[in-house]
Amino acid sequence: MKGKIILEEAFNLPRLAEEEAKHYASVHGAALLGKALADIDGRIAAMDEAGVEMQVLSLTSPGCQGVADPVEAHKMAVESNDYIAEKVKQNPSRFAAFAAVSMHDPKQAAEELSRAVIELGCVGVMLNDFQSSGPDGNTMLFYDNPVYDVFWATMEELDVLVYMHPRLASQRIFNELYRDRKWLQASAWGFANQLSIHILGIATSGVFDRFPGVQLAFGHMGEHIPFDLWRLDHKLDRDRFPEMRMAKNKTIRDYFATNMHITTSGNFSTRSLQGALAELSASRIMFSIDYPYEDGLMEGSTWFDTVPLSQPDLLAIGRENALRLLKLDRAPHNVKPGLSLKELEIGGLKGAIYPDDATHLRTVTRA
Amino acid sequence: MKGKIILEEAFNLPRLAEEEAKHYASVHGAALLGKALADIDGRIAAMDEAGVEMQVLSLTSPGCQGVADPVEAHKMAVESNDYIAEKVKQNPSRFAAFAAVSMHDPKQAAEELSRAVIELGCVGVMLNDFQSSGPDGNTMLFYDNPVYDVFWATMEELDVLVYMHPRLASQRIFNELYRDRKWLQASAWGFANQLSIHILGIATSGVFDRFPGVQLAFGHMGEHIPFDLWRLDHKLDRDRFPEMRMAKNKTIRDYFATNMHITTSGNFSTRSLQGALAELSASRIMFSIDYPYEDGLMEGSTWFDTVPLSQPDLLAIGRENALRLLKLDRAPHNVKPGLSLKELEIGGLKGAIYPDDATHLRTVTRA
Amino acid sequence: MKGKIILEEAFNLPRLAEEEAKHYASVHGAALLGKALADIDGRIAAMDEAGVEMQVLSLTSPGCQGVADPVEAHKMAVESNDYIAEKVKQNPSRFAAFAAVSMHDPKQAAEELSRAVIELGCVGVMLNDFQSSGPDGNTMLFYDNPVYDVFWATMEELDVLVYMHPRLASQRIFNELYRDRKWLQASAWGFANQLSIHILGIATSGVFDRFPGVQLAFGHMGEHIPFDLWRLDHKLDRDRFPEMRMAKNKTIRDYFATNMHITTSGNFSTRSLQGALAELSASRIMFSIDYPYEDGLMEGSTWFDTVPLSQPDLLAIGRENALRLLKLDRAPHNVKPGLSLKELEIGGLKGAIYPDDATHLRTVTRA
Amino acid sequence: MKGKIILEEAFNLPRLAEEEAKHYASVHGAALLGKALADIDGRIAAMDEAGVEMQVLSLTSPGCQGVADPVEAHKMAVESNDYIAEKVKQNPSRFAAFAAVSMHDPKQAAEELSRAVIELGCVGVMLNDFQSSGPDGNTMLFYDNPVYDVFWATMEELDVLVYMHPRLASQRIFNELYRDRKWLQASAWGFANQLSIHILGIATSGVFDRFPGVQLAFGHMGEHIPFDLWRLDHKLDRDRFPEMRMAKNKTIRDYFATNMHITTSGNFSTRSLQGALAELSASRIMFSIDYPYEDGLMEGSTWFDTVPLSQPDLLAIGRENALRLLKLDRAPHNVKPGLSLKELEIGGLKGAIYPDDATHLRTVTRA
Repeated sequence: MKGKIILEEAFNLPRLAEEEAKHYASVHGAALLGKALADIDGRIAAMDEAGVEMQVLSLTSPGCQGVADPVEAHKMAVESNDYIAEKVKQNPSRFAAFAAVSMHDPKQAAEELSRAVIELGCVGVMLNDFQSSGPDGNTMLFYDNPVYDVFWATMEELDVLVYMHPRLASQRIFNELYRDRKWLQASAWGFANQLSIHILGIATSGVFDRFPGVQLAFGHMGEHIPFDLWRLDHKLDRDRFPEMRMAKNKTIRDYFATNMHITTSGNFSTRSLQGALAELSASRIMFSIDYPYEDGLMEGSTWFDTVPLSQPDLLAIGRENALRLLKLDRAPHNVKPGLSLKELEIGGLKGAIYPDDATHLRTVTRA
Repeated sequence: MKGKIILEEAFNLPRLAEEEAKHYASVHGAALLGKALADIDGRIAAMDEAGVEMQVLSLTSPGCQGVADPVEAHKMAVESNDYIAEKVKQNPSRFAAFAAVSMHDPKQAAEELSRAVIELGCVGVMLNDFQSSGPDGNTMLFYDNPVYDVFWATMEELDVLVYMHPRLASQRIFNELYRDRKWLQASAWGFANQLSIHILGIATSGVFDRFPGVQLAFGHMGEHIPFDLWRLDHKLDRDRFPEMRMAKNKTIRDYFATNMHITTSGNFSTRSLQGALAELSASRIMFSIDYPYEDGLMEGSTWFDTVPLSQPDLLAIGRENALRLLKLDRAPHNVKPGLSLKELEIGGLKGAIYPDDATHLRTVTRA
Repeated sequence: MKGKIILEEAFNLPRLAEEEAKHYASVHGAALLGKALADIDGRIAAMDEAGVEMQVLSLTSPGCQGVADPVEAHKMAVESNDYIAEKVKQNPSRFAAFAAVSMHDPKQAAEELSRAVIELGCVGVMLNDFQSSGPDGNTMLFYDNPVYDVFWATMEELDVLVYMHPRLASQRIFNELYRDRKWLQASAWGFANQLSIHILGIATSGVFDRFPGVQLAFGHMGEHIPFDLWRLDHKLDRDRFPEMRMAKNKTIRDYFATNMHITTSGNFSTRSLQGALAELSASRIMFSIDYPYEDGLMEGSTWFDTVPLSQPDLLAIGRENALRLLKLDRAPHNVKPGLSLKELEIGGLKGAIYPDDATHLRTVTRA
Repeated sequence: MKGKIILEEAFNLPRLAEEEAKHYASVHGAALLGKALADIDGRIAAMDEAGVEMQVLSLTSPGCQGVADPVEAHKMAVESNDYIAEKVKQNPSRFAAFAAVSMHDPKQAAEELSRAVIELGCVGVMLNDFQSSGPDGNTMLFYDNPVYDVFWATMEELDVLVYMHPRLASQRIFNELYRDRKWLQASAWGFANQLSIHILGIATSGVFDRFPGVQLAFGHMGEHIPFDLWRLDHKLDRDRFPEMRMAKNKTIRDYFATNMHITTSGNFSTRSLQGALAELSASRIMFSIDYPYEDGLMEGSTWFDTVPLSQPDLLAIGRENALRLLKLDRAPHNVKPGLSLKELEIGGLKGAIYPDDATHLRTVTRA
C-alpha cells in the first residue's frame, strides 16, 4: 500500500541522541540507535521504499517528562519544538510533528503547546506518560489530576491530538517490581502496565466528560486496554466507587467511540489487530511503526501490506484516519484525501489473490 | 439501538398476497404470511418496538421475475410501483420503496425504473434473481448478458441501488437437484446457490468495469460469497479463462470495496457477521430483517442490539450505511444523518457493561 | 512445521492421465498436469521440502463417478485400487490411499470397498460427488437415496473415512447455469455449489442418524457450508418440512461435532480458516493441498506454517486429526502419534516471535 | 450445558469471612459477601440451576499470602486445608479443593502442599500472587526467585495444578500508582497488572525449563497476557537481556502450549474469549466464575451456554480440560469423562438453531 501515514516515530536533539539511546539500547546498540534518532532527512528513502508518505515526528521518550527540574524541562520543550518545526518546514509533504511540553505547570504546558501549534504548525502533542518531579525526581505527576483541566481545556480549544507514549517507571516502582526481572520493565510489558493506568485514570476522572472534544491516542495496539474492556467496565462499579468522577452513565467502551484511538506501533500482530478491530472498529485504529525502536520501516509495512484486512479497513487504518484526525490535508502538508484504492495500490490482482501472507505475494511477484 | 434502517422487507399486492404466500408457507402458515405481506400500515408499531426507524419495502419474490409473459410482467411492475409509492407517500418518514421491474426487455426495464425513481421516488430496484421467460416459463434470463448494458447504464445514471434477491430455481433445476431433497431448494440453501451464480456472473462479466457507478446489494450475509473470496479469486484464472470479460487486474474482493454490499437479512449469526466483517468491513454491511419471512422484527433486532460489535460498526451497519447509500436524508424521507451514539441509544452503561449477550442486558435491566 | 499429513491429493492411471487433465487444464497446461497426476514416486522430494510426511492419494475426479456404464465404472475402480495399493506398498511411510468405487450399485460398491480396505489397505474412500448414469450419462445418482443404506452400513462397519470431492455438473445443469459464464462452473464456484447440495442431502436424509459411526470429510474449507450454518439450521424448519428424515432434535451443527470434517485443500485463506475454526473447532479441520490442481506443495505449506494459529491447533489441523481419523499409526504406515511440538518444529524462537507472516519469518532466518 | 466444572471459586474460614469481605465489598456489601464466602453447602442448589457439576474451592485472596508473619501464615494454611478437606469429604462429587500455603519458606510450602495433596486430597494449590513479608508487611516475595526451585520441584513431582490468583498491591505500590484512582487498583485493572508481572517473571526465569512438568493456570481470561503475546516475545530480546534465564530458543507462546492455562473467571466477554482462543486454542482455556465476587453462577453460565463457540470447544472449555488437568475422574470425585454432547445438553435443536445469543434461546424455549 502506498500513501501510508505513521505517527509514533521518534527523533532526538542531536546533542542528546547518544545519551538517551543508552536507555533502550537494542540489538544494534546504543550508538546506532542514537544515530537513527538524530537523523531525520535520511529517513525519506526508507519511507519511499516502505510506501510511507508521511511520518509524524516526536521527541523520544521520556523527553521533557524525564526532566524533574521545571525550568530545564520547559527549556527542552522550547528547544525541541523550534528544532523540529524547522525540520518539518524543509519537507512538509513528508514530515509533520507532535510538540513536546513540560508538564510541571499545566498553564505553562498549555501556553507552549499553543505556541507550538499556532506558530510552529505542530499537529498535536506527545506526552511520555507521567512527569518526573520532586527533589529526587521520583515523584510522578499524572494528568488526571484536576489541576490539569486548564491543559485539557486548551487541547480541546486547539482541537489537536494528544498522544500518550510509555516511559520507564520511577526508581521506586522499579525497586518493587522489576529489579529481579529487568527485561519486563520496558517495552515487553512494564511500559503498557504503567501507561494503561495513566490513560484509564484520565478516562475515569471525567476528562472526556468535561472536555468532550479531547482526542487521545496511544500506541502498541492499545497498551493492553482493548482486550479487557468488558471486565474493565464490568468492574468499575458505580455503587462501589462513588468517588470516581467519570459520568455515571458512561463506560470506557463509550470513550473509545468518541475520544480514544490506538495505533499499531511496535505490535505487528495479526491476531491483536483483529481483536482490537472487534472492540474498537477500524475507525479508531491507525497504522504506525515506532521507528527507530523497530528496525526500519519494512518489517511493519510488509506485515501491514499483507495482513488479512478488508480494503476499506486497510485504507482507514493505513491512511485516512490519521489524515482526518490530524488534518494533514491542510497546508503546509497538503496530503490528498480521498485517493482511490487503485492510486494507493490497495487490492488489484496481485494483492487480492494472495492477501493472506507475504509468501503468496512473493509467488505472484516472482511469476 | 434506535434509528435502525432495514431494507429487505417484503410486501405484496393485496390481490396476490395469499396466492404468493403458499410458495413459502412458514410455520404460521400461508394465510398468516399472506396477511403479513399485504399489511403495511400495521408494521409501524412493531418498528417502534424494535427500534426500527425506516423500512424499505419491495414486492415479494419472485414478483415480476416470476411472470414469463412480458406484457403481464410489465403490468405487474407498473401496478406495484404505483401502489407502493402511494403507501410510502402516506408515511415517508417510516417507509421507502425499491421499485419492481420486468426484466424481459432491458430498455423497458430502464424506462419503468426511471419513472419509479424520478416520478414515484423509489430509492432503488429489487430484482428477484433471473427473469422467467419462454413458452414454458422455464428459460432463465441473467443480467450479465451484454443486452442488459442499457439497464446498467441507466442504473448508473440514476445512481440508485440494485438489490438482488433470491427466488426458487426453475422447474428443470428443481428436477435435477432438489426433487428428492425439497427442503434444500429454498432459503436453507438453494436460494443462495442460485443467486450467487447470478451475482458473480454480473461481476465477472465486467458490468462494474463498464459502469463503475453501479451499486449492488444482496442479503442473507452475502449469499455464501464473502466466506470464499480467496478461493474464488484464486481460481478465476485469467490465463485459463481468457473469455472472462472482467478487468484483468481486478478481483471480486476489489468490487466488494467499490460496487457491492451485503445485508444481514435472515441471517442473525454472530460468527457469520464477524466473518463478513473481516472480509468486507463494516462499511459494506447493512442490517436487515427479511420480514415477514422472519417472524416479526424483534428476534433480529434483539440479536443486532446485543451482538458483540464495536459502537462505530453498530452505527454504520445499523443505520449510517443505508442512510448514505439510499440518500434517505433527502425529502420526503428526511432521515437525520450524524445522530450521536447517545441519541441512538448505542452504548452507555447498560449496553456496554454487558454487550456480549442479552442475558446480561436483562440482568441490568432487572437491577 | 514438519510431519504434516495431506489428504486430498490426486493421481491418475497413467493410461488416462493426459486425457483427464484436459478438463481442468490450468495455467501450466494439460500436458504438465497430466504428467503430474501420473507421477507418484516423484512427489517425495517435494513432500520433504514442504514438511509433508504423509500424502493420502486418490483417483482424480470424476474417476469412476464420471463413467455412466456400470461395468466400465466398476472395472476402473478395481484397476485403480489395485494400482494405487501397489504404489503405496512401495512407500507405506509416505503414501496411503483412498479407494475408488463405482456407485451404480450400492452393494457392489460396498463389496469393492471392503476388498480395498481389508485386502489392499486403503484408509477410506473418495467419492467424486454424484454418479453419472443413464443412456446419455446425464442422470445424477445421489447417495442420500435410501437404496445406498447398504453402502453406508458397510462404511460404518469398516470404520473408514468417506471423502466427498467435487466434480463438474451434468450437461443439463451446465446448459442452464454455466454456459454463459463457464469460469464459474468448476473450482471457482460451481464445484462447491453442487457438492454442498449432495453433502447436505446426506445429512438431512438421516444417514448419520441411521449410521452414527459414519465419518464424512470434504475439502476446500467446507464447500461453502461452515459459513452459513446458523441460517441453514434456522431454515430447515421441521414443521414446514415433515418429510425431511433427519432426526427432529438434531441440527447440521450437531453433525459437524460427530460425523463431518473439512480440509483446507485449495483454500489457503486465513480468514476462511478462522471462520471455519469458530464454527467447527480445530478438531474437525485437516490440512490438505489438492495437488496437483494447486501448483506444488510449497504455497499451501508456507501459508499453513505461518498462518496465525495457536500451536495446539496447528498440531491438530496439520497432523494429529488426520493421523487419528485415518488410523495412520497402524502398520504398514506407522506414523508416530504424540510427537512433541519441538520434534515437529512448531513454535520456538524463530516461529513464535514472528508468527503472523512469512516476511517476519524471513527477517529472522536472515538474522 | 450440563456438567460444567468451575475452578476459581472462593470460600473463607467462617471466623474470617466478614473481616476479609470488607476489602472487596461489592454492590451487595461486605456482610452479604462474607456470608457467601463462608457458605459452602448452600452452593449446591445454585450449581444445579446453572448446570455446574463440580466447583473447585480455594481460600479467598489474599489468604496466607497476606499474612506477613511466617508462623501465622503457616497456621492459616494448615487450618484452611484441614477445614476445606472436611467440607469436600462430605460432597466429593460436587466439590474439590485447591490447597492454601504460606510461601515464606519454600520448603515448608512444599511440605504442607504434599500433605494437602497426598493426605487431604487437594487437586492443586491456589497462590494469591506475592507473599507479604518483612516487618511492615510491605516486602513482596515473588516465586521466580531461585530459592523457590524446591517448591516448583515438588509441584512437578506431585503433578498438580498451580493456580495464580491476584491480590491487592503493597501499600508502597498503592501510594505510587493508585491513591488518586483507587477504583483501578483491584479487579478492574491493577489486579491483572500486578499478577501478570509475577506470572511472566516465573516464565522468563526458566521455571518451565527446569521443571517442564509444572502446570500453571490463571484466571480473568489471562490477566492481559494472551492479547499481547506477539509484542511480548518480540521485545524479550535475547541479545539485549542476556541475564534472562528462560531458554534461549523458547517463547512465552511456547509455554502456553505446554505449561500455562487460563480461565474465564470474572471475564464473560465473547470477544476476549475469541481472542484468547485464537492465541491459545480451546485446549488451554477453562470455564470459571469467580464466585462470590461475581453475583451467583447464572450470569456467567448463561453467557457461556450461549456464547458463539463450536460444540467441541464448549465441551473442552466447559468440562473436559479441567476434568483431565485436575484428574477429577479419580476417587473420591469420580467425575465421568467422555460424556456425549447429548448427555451434557450441548447442541440439539434448541441450542443450535439459535446459538448466537440468549434472546433466540428464549424464543425457542418459549415456543
